[in-house]
This record gives sequence, structure tokens and C-alpha cells, in this order.
Amino acid sequence: MSDKSSNQMWGGRFAAGPDAIMEAINASIGFDKRMAAQDIAGSRAHAAMLAAQGIITSSDAEAMREGLLTVLSEIETGVFQFSTALEDIHMNVEARLKEVIGAPAGRLHTGRSRNDQVATDFRLWVRDQLDAASSGLTALISALVAQAEMGADWVMPGFTHLQTAQPVTWGHHMLAYVEMFARDLNRVQDARKRMNESPLGAAALAGTSFPIDRDMTALALGFDRPMANSLDAVSDRDFALEFLSVASISAMHLSRFAEELVIWSSVQFRFVTLSDRFSTGSSIMPQKKNPDAAELIRAKVGRIFGANVALMMVMKGLPLAYSKDMQEDKEQVFDAADNWMLALAAMEGMVKDMTANRTNLEAAASAGFSTATDLADWLVRTLDLPFRDAHHVTGSLVAMAEQKGCDLPDLSLEDMQSVHEAITADVFDVLGVHNSVASRTSYGGTAPVRVREQVARWKEVLE
Amino acid sequence: MSDKSSNQMWGGRFAAGPDAIMEAINASIGFDKRMAAQDIAGSRAHAAMLAAQGIITSSDAEAMREGLLTVLSEIETGVFQFSTALEDIHMNVEARLKEVIGAPAGRLHTGRSRNDQVATDFRLWVRDQLDAASSGLTALISALVAQAEMGADWVMPGFTHLQTAQPVTWGHHMLAYVEMFARDLNRVQDARKRMNESPLGAAALAGTSFPIDRDMTALALGFDRPMANSLDAVSDRDFALEFLSVASISAMHLSRFAEELVIWSSVQFRFVTLSDRFSTGSSIMPQKKNPDAAELIRAKVGRIFGANVALMMVMKGLPLAYSKDMQEDKEQVFDAADNWMLALAAMEGMVKDMTANRTNLEAAASAGFSTATDLADWLVRTLDLPFRDAHHVTGSLVAMAEQKGCDLPDLSLEDMQSVHEAITADVFDVLGVHNSVASRTSYGGTAPVRVREQVARWKEVLE
Amino acid sequence: MSDKSSNQMWGGRFAAGPDAIMEAINASIGFDKRMAAQDIAGSRAHAAMLAAQGIITSSDAEAMREGLLTVLSEIETGVFQFSTALEDIHMNVEARLKEVIGAPAGRLHTGRSRNDQVATDFRLWVRDQLDAASSGLTALISALVAQAEMGADWVMPGFTHLQTAQPVTWGHHMLAYVEMFARDLNRVQDARKRMNESPLGAAALAGTSFPIDRDMTALALGFDRPMANSLDAVSDRDFALEFLSVASISAMHLSRFAEELVIWSSVQFRFVTLSDRFSTGSSIMPQKKNPDAAELIRAKVGRIFGANVALMMVMKGLPLAYSKDMQEDKEQVFDAADNWMLALAAMEGMVKDMTANRTNLEAAASAGFSTATDLADWLVRTLDLPFRDAHHVTGSLVAMAEQKGCDLPDLSLEDMQSVHEAITADVFDVLGVHNSVASRTSYGGTAPVRVREQVARWKEVLE
Amino acid sequence: MSDKSSNQMWGGRFAAGPDAIMEAINASIGFDKRMAAQDIAGSRAHAAMLAAQGIITSSDAEAMREGLLTVLSEIETGVFQFSTALEDIHMNVEARLKEVIGAPAGRLHTGRSRNDQVATDFRLWVRDQLDAASSGLTALISALVAQAEMGADWVMPGFTHLQTAQPVTWGHHMLAYVEMFARDLNRVQDARKRMNESPLGAAALAGTSFPIDRDMTALALGFDRPMANSLDAVSDRDFALEFLSVASISAMHLSRFAEELVIWSSVQFRFVTLSDRFSTGSSIMPQKKNPDAAELIRAKVGRIFGANVALMMVMKGLPLAYSKDMQEDKEQVFDAADNWMLALAAMEGMVKDMTANRTNLEAAASAGFSTATDLADWLVRTLDLPFRDAHHVTGSLVAMAEQKGCDLPDLSLEDMQSVHEAITADVFDVLGVHNSVASRTSYGGTAPVRVREQVARWKEVLE
Repeated sequence: MSDKSSNQMWGGRFAAGPDAIMEAINASIGFDKRMAAQDIAGSRAHAAMLAAQGIITSSDAEAMREGLLTVLSEIETGVFQFSTALEDIHMNVEARLKEVIGAPAGRLHTGRSRNDQVATDFRLWVRDQLDAASSGLTALISALVAQAEMGADWVMPGFTHLQTAQPVTWGHHMLAYVEMFARDLNRVQDARKRMNESPLGAAALAGTSFPIDRDMTALALGFDRPMANSLDAVSDRDFALEFLSVASISAMHLSRFAEELVIWSSVQFRFVTLSDRFSTGSSIMPQKKNPDAAELIRAKVGRIFGANVALMMVMKGLPLAYSKDMQEDKEQVFDAADNWMLALAAMEGMVKDMTANRTNLEAAASAGFSTATDLADWLVRTLDLPFRDAHHVTGSLVAMAEQKGCDLPDLSLEDMQSVHEAITADVFDVLGVHNSVASRTSYGGTAPVRVREQVARWKEVLE
Repeated sequence: MSDKSSNQMWGGRFAAGPDAIMEAINASIGFDKRMAAQDIAGSRAHAAMLAAQGIITSSDAEAMREGLLTVLSEIETGVFQFSTALEDIHMNVEARLKEVIGAPAGRLHTGRSRNDQVATDFRLWVRDQLDAASSGLTALISALVAQAEMGADWVMPGFTHLQTAQPVTWGHHMLAYVEMFARDLNRVQDARKRMNESPLGAAALAGTSFPIDRDMTALALGFDRPMANSLDAVSDRDFALEFLSVASISAMHLSRFAEELVIWSSVQFRFVTLSDRFSTGSSIMPQKKNPDAAELIRAKVGRIFGANVALMMVMKGLPLAYSKDMQEDKEQVFDAADNWMLALAAMEGMVKDMTANRTNLEAAASAGFSTATDLADWLVRTLDLPFRDAHHVTGSLVAMAEQKGCDLPDLSLEDMQSVHEAITADVFDVLGVHNSVASRTSYGGTAPVRVREQVARWKEVLE
Repeated sequence: MSDKSSNQMWGGRFAAGPDAIMEAINASIGFDKRMAAQDIAGSRAHAAMLAAQGIITSSDAEAMREGLLTVLSEIETGVFQFSTALEDIHMNVEARLKEVIGAPAGRLHTGRSRNDQVATDFRLWVRDQLDAASSGLTALISALVAQAEMGADWVMPGFTHLQTAQPVTWGHHMLAYVEMFARDLNRVQDARKRMNESPLGAAALAGTSFPIDRDMTALALGFDRPMANSLDAVSDRDFALEFLSVASISAMHLSRFAEELVIWSSVQFRFVTLSDRFSTGSSIMPQKKNPDAAELIRAKVGRIFGANVALMMVMKGLPLAYSKDMQEDKEQVFDAADNWMLALAAMEGMVKDMTANRTNLEAAASAGFSTATDLADWLVRTLDLPFRDAHHVTGSLVAMAEQKGCDLPDLSLEDMQSVHEAITADVFDVLGVHNSVASRTSYGGTAPVRVREQVARWKEVLE
Repeated sequence: MSDKSSNQMWGGRFAAGPDAIMEAINASIGFDKRMAAQDIAGSRAHAAMLAAQGIITSSDAEAMREGLLTVLSEIETGVFQFSTALEDIHMNVEARLKEVIGAPAGRLHTGRSRNDQVATDFRLWVRDQLDAASSGLTALISALVAQAEMGADWVMPGFTHLQTAQPVTWGHHMLAYVEMFARDLNRVQDARKRMNESPLGAAALAGTSFPIDRDMTALALGFDRPMANSLDAVSDRDFALEFLSVASISAMHLSRFAEELVIWSSVQFRFVTLSDRFSTGSSIMPQKKNPDAAELIRAKVGRIFGANVALMMVMKGLPLAYSKDMQEDKEQVFDAADNWMLALAAMEGMVKDMTANRTNLEAAASAGFSTATDLADWLVRTLDLPFRDAHHVTGSLVAMAEQKGCDLPDLSLEDMQSVHEAITADVFDVLGVHNSVASRTSYGGTAPVRVREQVARWKEVLE
């Protein structure tokens, strides 16, 4: 590998070489080498197009394309020597290509610039991550649907304010997260569609006078079309920002589920048992079984959204077209992508492995007067009380039960009639938690029959 | 209006009334009254459905629907007395409805809860803002296309690193922003489509045992369908977060253009003259003409993205389903929406009013050896030099010109040949800025012919 | 009040008046009127100084100072008519002063500018908020110390990963928050000290040629000294950013405690009972007692830190000295300050009112093998086992107890000796939770004796 | 090195080993090895204290302390084999120590836990960075003071809204940044003082029953005192958050100066020439000299503040005491610290190397009617006009000059008198830029005499 400074490559313009600090702040090869495969794919497409358009000879193009495969193979096998003096992945690959194929390498950069090259590489990289996220989200959704199918009629407390509100089913709760991750998936698909345009051929910023064919390179790289404005092509980082905001919202969903798993794993709740695979012990407290994976997943939203903030702030107020500030985009996206994929995989693993403690869930669902609403609804439906009045009667009965230290079904009919005389024994039919969940059959409701319909729908979607 | 505490409405459960601090932190009526129209539309749809399903009588439903129109009219005319003790818009409207129509008002809340009600109101409000953003973005795009059409062949410097890089056309630069705002518009449309589902009927969190028809209310409110999971329906704020991230990226675009306008308005650049309508003076420096609107627009991305951060942080780690934390969603979205719309309108106004200073733009385009790339490309194309060699020759010629204090076209043929002897007089044909921009005819390039094609395309889209 | 446009005041420079959008985006009077008292205090100090330096006459100064008091009184009593056309609080006050005292009002602005005037007003406002935060934090600390004193020896579970780790005392847990809020208080004091410098007299940005005395105005306004660089004085917003970051960290502390209160209030935990004053009911579930205040406090960190993000983003990359972007500073700081003060007061109220459920706390502390560490430590201390070996023995005993469905103290001596034969009956002395907490007497440890020492220290500090 | 899983170390509690995903999300050794020196320093202090207190033997302590030096040396020379299975730096060091010194290594962990150990390590690491920041800031301030001294009387435009407002001096502008970075330094000092307390001895969370001496370890590690509450000691990350917010504000200052350098380097401004050491060329435009270092510095605020957002979000709502979420703290702080130090060093280098273009600065200062304020002030001072009237007269004269295409000093006395008849020829004495800056002698003003005083003050401070 050449170790001469890339500065020399810029020609004789600079008297002094960049010093150590400048090299440290300026070089990107430390991280942009992750885009080597994308860089080489872009260069191979560009070379083929240059030949097809008669801008370079076919034999030069062939040499470039073969040579680039050699370089790729060197990188993939780890024998490639990256040079910080050569600053970035583009210069590293090109310098090595020159060593491999000689003079023709010098013609590869015809009709393009590092500005459109890096924009192309990065777009391809982000597109791959969107595809990886699709897979990760789909796998997680499948794991949740499996849990929902298993527990379509298991009763658990539905919480508001972390207070027992009404009984719901385990399957219903799992499907709530299915909806969230499905929206994430939908956002991923929209983002992919929007960003799948090729910047290649925008050159430095103004396009080029060489008779290039941007449709050809776009097609070769799987893009739907070339971008329509060359200034925009080199200055746009929307695709990275949209990736980060989609990832952030998804990570927020993960944080909510992770929080529930942490709370549900506490000795006080004991709603679920996480597998040993996703828990760890303590160096000083041998009995502890800590939900570490859930906690780490909960934290990832900070890291991923922190990257979103970072890049938004970098882009704020940047004049067109390319500014070096934009080099700060990659590390943020790389780190966010790695952590999103990791969190999705860890959550999928936890969901697959976890065991719902049905007994505890059902006992908890029965506590806390959780069928008070069912009582109020019965008063409306059967006695035709206005809702607010039914609410008031129910409140009085709850207060009575609380005072007696019993649950609503444990009150006697006389107790009930002392608050509202028209109440009949039929009321007891709506007060059990199984009756309660079975009755909530409105579309999207928690009744097992509704949950099973949704499970069936999702299984069809996932096939 | 009733001024009795809503606490009393909850029934006899609470011994003590909330004190002043609690009222201050808990009440939302101060801001959620902005959703009055949406709240009343939701209630009217709900009442009609309850009657259609036989849950309430038609005459009760009719009274409710009429009464709600009366309340709406009172709010719109400013005679409505909002009560903080009644906490929120839902309770304020309902309490007033009871005064207007009496007992039947008590049946309106059958089969719903404040949880699905607020989710419905807020979704409708955000949907209106997405529509307003569509209009604002379209108007701004139109203004930019008009500027692009006018200046399709005006030459200006294309910058990278705020250094003159290559000449571009004014029209091309305007169209770069058209692409950005068009992506924003596209994101708005995707967001609207994704969020246009009805939470109404999810009730508190579990659905309801009343035989409601969620499709009917969804249709009446313009939603595409009811949401499929009641827990998700009351706990989801994705639509607000996606609104905020779409708005934030758009505000970032505005900040970039605003930065350019501030720089271009400086005495040193004098690229544009902003109208007096969008500038202001100084209390101590009478000659100043400050680009205040541009600066304020530049700042809005902070405020809008700050709201995004705020809501992301609020939602982080919240267990299902509804938690009171989520009440913090509205003020953030309201403020971000107001400021986004204002910034779009102000930018549209500035773009319409501003005058490009063609002479200065062209003079600046010619300075800074801006056709060096054209020279390098000529060396590649005509003399068949490898790109990197052509680059080196060009660098030497630039250094020579800089030393002589002249521009590239001012060098003599002898000067040129002293660096590379094969250079011929034909080289001078590519060195002028008009030649330069006219030559960049690759798709998406800055050539006037390409710019006019894009203008034509956009005018068709906008029709 | 005058309603002529302030634009006219800038002189004849502008042909056209600002239109409605410009007025909407530009005017700050809607929010900066909150700084009226500070603005008038600054003007009164400035007038007195101008007279003392002989720049204006004493009678003019006297008229100004009296007139300003009149204006202040009009504002405080609500009779003042604010005008949007006059843009900001400075122009509103000055225009009214002219109506009240006539011509001399025109001399008040001598030797200053709106740039240093707004910097002064805002600094004074923020300083008041720092003082309010000191009071709020001190009151909250007092409430926590009172809880700590009461429950210095009440036993509760100490959690890591929300798993029972070791028993701790209620007092110790309360004092952990005292430490956090005391650091907040310390940060408030540092911030106040750093920001207490006067920008007044920096004029537009360069200082002034009038022989002003900046020490005199600084002293009159309670500042420690004038700022040393006039460019910095008008362009600095560090004091606002530091306020926001101090507030954000404090709000994060509040969010942690609020999360604990929400979890502790759940039916599953029942560690505390919050007072009715800081809880609310539900419109559909009469039995609910929701920790709304705790949830809202938990959310405030989003809002306050969102303001921090907003202002950081506004300030990013602003060239010196004053840019209109900086007008976006106030609403963020106002909103953050209001919400911080509110959250501190609400938390103080909750802490004062809340009741720890001692029985539940102690029962929970005993569960989950919480004295396993005490056992391990006993093995080290008494049997001289290396820590890692003791850890292993303890792990085996915990596994045995778990299998038998009993707690550690319920194992027989034979059981214990089957794992490690040297164990003696003395081991049972360290296994109870009261023994456990009493033994942790290292400095800062949870032993009641240590907690009482800390309580005494804090009571002395608070006196 | 041992490669057995640390999971095995927790005892027999876990049936299954953690799988690959869990290892990937859970292990911290990939990044926390940066704290090896701090970890070993902490362990050495702990060992010495255990012996001094008679908890372990002196010979064991001596073996540990020597063995730890051996391990440190292995790490520093790069021969140490880090193991992911051993999770973190603490376990890696301890496992190796056991290999080096055998059984006594097992007693090192007596009376402490990984919770207080990591808190201690990280605090020591952050403290080192605060010290590094002090050096970096001081060096940058020195470079700025040197520029200020050189150009104490060089005239340049003072901008507001990027419009020429009034002439200022180069030295005055440099000193504005000195004030900012000096406040940063002051914040660093406050942060260091506040965080310099030892968590060591807090053990897992409750303190310990071993008779440890926390003052002794605190002293040995350079801490001012032990932390007063063990729960707080293991759950506190304020020191990291305060580090990040101090760094963020400082990075914001850097971004403002960087923005100015980018603008000043443009062909249109040409206010400064950056050295070749801190500029780079372009792959396609040989003549470009891009202010890359300035742009990268401008971007760093995004990255650093992004880390602040990330950690704030991680900490939001975490119950006491230790949660695994907190493991996400280190990478954020490491990255922010590295980039802050790099940005400070790069800015210092740029400031030292850069050349102010005096001619351009002075010419720019004279343009744009920059002495209009001086004229207005003269009218007030000499003719005793009220300020607002003087402002109006000045506005008319500026309009006249603009119409004539000349500057204020180029108007004739007759021209002047046509606007206000009392104007005399003396007025011309205040209209030149050198007169203007020399006249602004108020404290903190731009007059060379004031600038030189401040330079002298700073040189004394820096000595």
C-alpha cells in the first residue's frame, strides 16, 4: 500500500502537510471503511457505464472492475492495509487499485467526485440497514404473535397509571406491541422507497460535461432512479435523518416493552420469568437474577435518539452544497444502526424465551376492583342509568367494598341494593375477570375472540 | 357554566380536594381547548353511532348533536367560560352540554372513555396540521419554482465549504430546495396516511361491551379505518412523534436556506436583496437592514426539534396503556405546528419578494478559479490525460494564476504550455462561466436546458 | 397608548410596513412582557447613572425614574395596553414613558441599545429564577429530611435492576435524593455566581463614547461587576443555557423519584400511599387512585430538557454579535422555569403528604434472599473464606432455599453444613433484615446510626 | 488468560450460558478497558486500606498491589488478552490477578462491589478529562490573547445580523471568545470540585459491615471526601452529565467561532487566511482551499451534545439504585471527551496559524455607514438632541448618502445642514472608523486602550 499523503494527491497547492491534529480530526478512514463494499459496488457500476458511454475503453473498464474485486477480496479477508494518510475509503480503494492495475485506475474518477461518491456509498449502506431492520422487526413481530396466540385468553390486569384498570388478555397486550412494531416496519418501507434514488453522477455539485448515463448506474445499483438535482444530491442527508428518526421511534417502543419486562420481573409483580439466557447474576448477591438485557434495550433509545439529535444539529444551518461538517454523519448512523439491530434481536430472543406466569397474572387481574367498569356498564345497560350516575353508584360500591376489605363480587345483593335499590342478582354475571374480558368484543377489544382474529390476520401477513 | 370541581364528578372517592399546586400541574384546559372543534366533532359522531346501534334513543342523540353545535358556537364566538376546575376540554364541553340539554348529556359518555376521546381529538388536530403543512409546503415550492424559472440561466457560484467550487445557475440552486421541500411534502403524505386510523371506541383501554360500531364513527370523522388494538389506540403517540420528526427535518431545510439568505444579504456577498417587508431596522444603527425573518426562521428548527426531543423523552419507558405523562404531548405539538406553519409562510413571503442581484452573482461566479474543473475535464477529454494527472496540471496552472493575480482565462497559451505542452488554444472555450454551466448537461445537472426541464416538470406537478 | 408602528421609529428607512406574517414571527411582546419589572429596574438604574455622570440632567432623570414607576404600576395593575406593533417590552415601556413624561423620555436610550438592554433584562429574570429554584430545592430537601428522620430505621428493600438486592432503611433511601437535590442546589449557586455580571453599557456591541459608569448600574442592579467585553455581553446566552442544563439534571432527579412513587403506589408494591391531594380518579373506573402528579413530574424532564436542546440548537454556529435567532431564547427559558418550579413544589407537596407502608416495606425487604450478602460476608469474616468462594457457597445455599420454597434463615444448620461444613449456628445472627441494616455502618452506609448522623448534619445545614 | 465464562463465576445459579446476542449487548469490555488504569488505581487503594484496617493481611495486600502493577504493565504494553466472556474491565483484571498471584486475589473484592468499583473508575476517568479540558481551554485562551494583543487596534466590522453595525477592533473580537472559553474553564473547575468525592466503599448499594476506612481510599485516590450516601454513590451519574453539559456549551462556543472562520475564509469576505495545515484541497477542484478543520469543529457540538441527550434520556426515570441501563454512560462520555479535546486542540492550532487580513478588515469596517451611531451620538452630545430625534436625523443622512452612492464622511456640510441646520464641521471628527473605535472607551468597550487593559489582565491570569 502507498503511504504517501493524500495531500500530495491534491497537487502542489499545499506547502505544508497537515499535522497530527488535522489528520486526527480530518481522516474518516477509521470509520468509513465499513462502506468498502458499497464503495466498490459504486465504482464498478461507474466503470461499466463510462465504457458503455465510450468515455473510457472497454479494456480499461474491465481492468478496473476486476481490480476492484481484487481489492474487495483483500478487504474482506483482512489483508488490506488501510492508510490514515489516504483519509477515506475512496482514496484508500483508489490508491490500491492503482497498485493493482496501474495507469487505467487514474481514469475511474472521470465524471464523478468524492461528493457524489460518498453520497452513493452511504445511501447504499443505509438501504442495507433498512432491509436489516425489516427483517429484525418481522422476526420480533412473529415472536410476539406466537405469544399472543398462546395466551389469547389468559387474563392479566390492564393498567393505566400503573394502576389496575380493567382486565385484559395476555394476547391483547402482546398484540399492542405488534401494532407498534408494524408501524415501525411501515415507516421503514416508506423511508426505503423515498431514499432509493441515485446521487451518482451529480459530480462535485453541478453535474458534469461528460456524457454519462445516470440511469444506467442507478439501475445497476438497485436505485429506482437518479436524483433530479445535483446540488441536492451531494448536500442531502435526509435519508440518514429519516433512518435515525424511524429507528428512534422504534427504539422508544422497545424501551416501553423493556420497562414492562423489568417491572414484570420484579418479585412484587412476578408476571413473567425471563430465561437465564437473557438475565445475569450479581458479583455480590448470588440470588439475583437481573433483567440486564431488558435494561440495556430500555437504554438504547437514548443512544439512538442521541445520534438523531447529533446529526440534526450538524445539519442545522449548513449552506449548500457540501460542507465537511457532513462527514460527522456516518459514525452516528453506524452506531444507531448497530444498536437498533442488536436491540431488536435481543428483544426477539427475550420474547421467545420468556414465560408468562398465568396464575399471578390472573390473580392480579382480579384485585383492585378491576371490574368496576363492568358494573357501571351493567347499570347503564340494564337499569338505563345515565353513565355519570352509574359511575357514581359504582364509586359508592367500590368505597363500600374497600371499607369491608373485600372485592366487588364479594358484596351481598343487600349491600348493593343499599346503594341502588334496582340492582338485581344478574349483576354478579359481569363481575368476574373472565366474564369481563369475554364481554369486550368491540373491534380491537380485548375479548379472546377478537384477539384470535387479530392473530390470524397477522399470521397471514407474516406468511 | 358550572364551577364545581371535576373531582366531585369522580364520585365520593376523594376526601380532600386537589390543592392549588395539583390543579396547576394537572389541568390541561389552558391548552387543550384548542381541540374544542375536534372534541365536538368526535362527540357528534359518537352520539349518532350510539343511536344507530340502539344504545341510546334517537331523540337523545339529536339533542346531544344539536347541543354540541350550540356549545361549539359559544366557543367560537368567545362567550364560553372555560373552567380550570373541570380540568380539560372534554369535561368542559360535557358539563356545558348538560346545562344546555339536561339529563341526556349523561348518556354521551356511554361506550367511550376520556382515554380514547383525547386520542381521537388529538389525532384529528394533528391531521389538520398535516394538511396545513401540505398547503404551506406547496406554496413555498411554487414560489421557489417561480424563482427558478426566472433565473434558469443566471450564473452564480456553486459553493462547497463556502468556497467557490464551480459555477451553477440560480434556477438550479432554487430547485435544490424544491427537492428538499418536496421530500418534506412526501413525508407529510406518508405520515397522514399512516396516522389516519380511529382510536374512538377503544374506551379506557380494553374496548367495550356495548355493541358500538367503530367503522361508522371512523367513517364519519374521515378516518380510513378503526385502530386494531384498543391498548395501542390509547397509548400510541407515534402520530405526534412522526409529525414532529417530519416537521423537524423540514425546519432543518428552512434553516439551511435561511442561513444562505443571511449570508447572501451581507454587504460582502450582496447576492440578494430582501424586501423591506421581511427586514427590520435597528434602534441605534439607522442604516441597518437586518434579515430578521431569515434569522428567526433559521432558529425555528431548534424550537421544533426541541419539541421532538421533549416528547420522545416523555414517551421513553412508559408502560402501557395510558399514563398521565402523555398529557405533556399537546403543548409540544401545538407549539411546533404553529412555528412550522409560520416559518413556511414567512419563507414563502421572502422568496416571493426577494431580488437576486444578477451582476454580483455572475461576478462572484467568475472569481476563485471556478472553471478549474472545466479545465481539468478538458485535459481528460481532449488530451486523454488520466483524471489525476489532469488534476495535477490544473493545480499548477491555478497556482500560476494566483501568483500572477489573474484568473485562468487570463493566462497566455505560453503560460499554459509551460505546464503541459500539448495544451492548445481550444482550451479557452471551456473557461468562461457561461460555457461552464451550459456544458453540465448530465441529468440533474446545472445546465439551463436541464433546469428548464425540471421547472416544467414541477409546474406540471403543481397544477 | 401609541399604536404607531415601531418601524416608523427606525426612521424613514423603510418604504413598506412589515406585513402580518412578519409581525407574527418578529414581535416578542407576547412573551417578553414577563420581563417588564426587570426592564424598568434596568432603565431606572441607567437613568440615575446618566444623571450622576452628567450626561442628562437630574430633573430629566427624576422624571424618567418616576415615570417608569408609573408605567410599572400600570403593568402590575393590568391597565397597561401592550402593542404588538411596538414589538417588544422595551419599546412598549419607552413609548408609554414618552406619553407620561414627554420629551425627556427620548434621552433615556442614551448610551445603551436594545441589545444590552434585553441582555440585562433577561439576566435579571433568570437570576430571579435561580433564587426561586434555591427556595424550591431547599423546601424539597427539608421535606425529604423529615421523612428520613421519621423512618431512619424502617427497613425496605434496596433494589438493583428492580430486584431486591439488600435491605436498606427508608431514611437512607430518602437521603439519597437529598444528596441529588443538594447537588442541584450547589449547581444553582455556582450558576448564579457565574452569571451575576452586568451587560448594561455594552450598548449595541462595541461599548459607547458616552462617559457612562458601568460599575454604578451593575451595583444598583445587584450584579457583582460589569461584563468585561461588550461583544460578549450582547452575544452571550451561557447563563440561559446553564440555567437549562442545571434545571434538566434536577428534573432528571425528579423523574427518578417520580418513577419510584408510581411503582411504589402500584397494587403490587403498595410501598407508599399518596395523599388524595396529589392523586386523581378516572372518568370510567371509579376505584382508581392515580398518581397523576408523580407522572406529570416524571414527564417534566422531557419538556425542560427539550428547551435545553432547543436553545443549544439555536445558538449553534451563530456568528457574533447579536443575531435575531437569539430572540428564541426567552420562551424556552420561561417555560422550563415555570415547569421546574411547579415540579419542585408538587414533589415537595407529595413528599410531605405521603405515607410509607412500613409493614409492606419490611415484608418486601425480607423476601428474595435479601441477606445473601450478609451470609457471604459472614463466611469471609468468620471462616476466612476468599470472597469468591464465599460467594459460591452462598449461591448454593440460595439455590437450596429456593428449591425448598423457604428463606435463608429457614434453612437448618444441617442444610447449611451440607454445603460448607464449617458453618456454625452463629450464622443466623446476620440473616434478619434488621441485623443486616444495623451492621452496615461504614460511612454513608444504611445503618440507622449512620442515617441519623446524616439527618442531623442536614438539619444543621438547613437551619 | 482464563476464558471461562464470568457467568460461571456467579456460581451455579444459571443453567444456560448467555448466547451470542446477550454477550454482544451485555459485555462492556470493548469500551471499559479504557478505564484500566483507573480500575487498577482503585483496587490498589482498596487493598492498602483493607490491610491497614486488618481486614486482610499485609502480605496479601502487598501481593495484590504488586500483582496489579504487573497487570497494568501488561495492559499498557499491549500483551494483555482481554476476554469478552469476562464481560468488563473489573472481571478481566481480577481474573488475571488471580493467575498472577493466586488465591489472595480472591480477597480483593472484600467490602466492595462492582457497583462502587465502576462508579469510582468512571469518576477518576472523567476527572482526568476535566483536567485535560482545563489544559486545552487554557492553551486556546492563550492563543486568542496573543491574537488580541497583536491586533488590539486593527479595525474590523462589528456585525449584528451579519450586517455591519459599528467598527470594532480585532483584539476586542478575539477577547469576546476569551470570555466564553474562560467561562467554560470556570465551569470545568466547578464541575471538578463538585464531582471529586469517592464512591468507593458504598459496596453494592447499602455500605458494608466490614470495618473499612473510606477516608483513606478517598485520600489515596485524590478525592476530597467519601460520598455521604451509598445508594446515591452507586446510582449517581451527575458527574458525567455535568461533564457533558459543560462540554456541550464549550463546543457551542467553538461552533460559533468556527462559523465565523468559515465565513471569513470565503472569497467574498477574505478576512482571514487559514494555514495550509488546517485546510485541505478537493479531489476535483484543484484551486480550492477548504476550511475543513473549522467545519469539523463546527460540527462537533452536534456529536457532543448528542451524547448529552443520550445520557439524559438513559437516566430519565431510572429507579434507585443501580440499573444496567447505566452501562450506556461510558461510550457517550468517552466519545464526547475525545472530540472536545480534539476540537480544542484543532481550534488552538488554527488560531495560532491564522493570519488576519488587515486591509480587508479595515475596508469592510468603513463600508455600510458603520459610523452612523457615532453621528447619532454626536448629535445627542453636541446638539443635545434627544436620542430618538438624533436617530431620525442620522437615518435621513444615511438615506441621502446611499442615494448618492457615497459614505457618510463624503457628504458635504451643506448636505448635512439640509437635514439639520445646527450641524457643524466638527461632526467629521467622529466619522472615521479609527476615531470611532478609539472613542468607545466605556469599560468593556472596543477602544484599543480598553483592549490592551484586558489583554494585560488575561496575561496575568494565564501566567
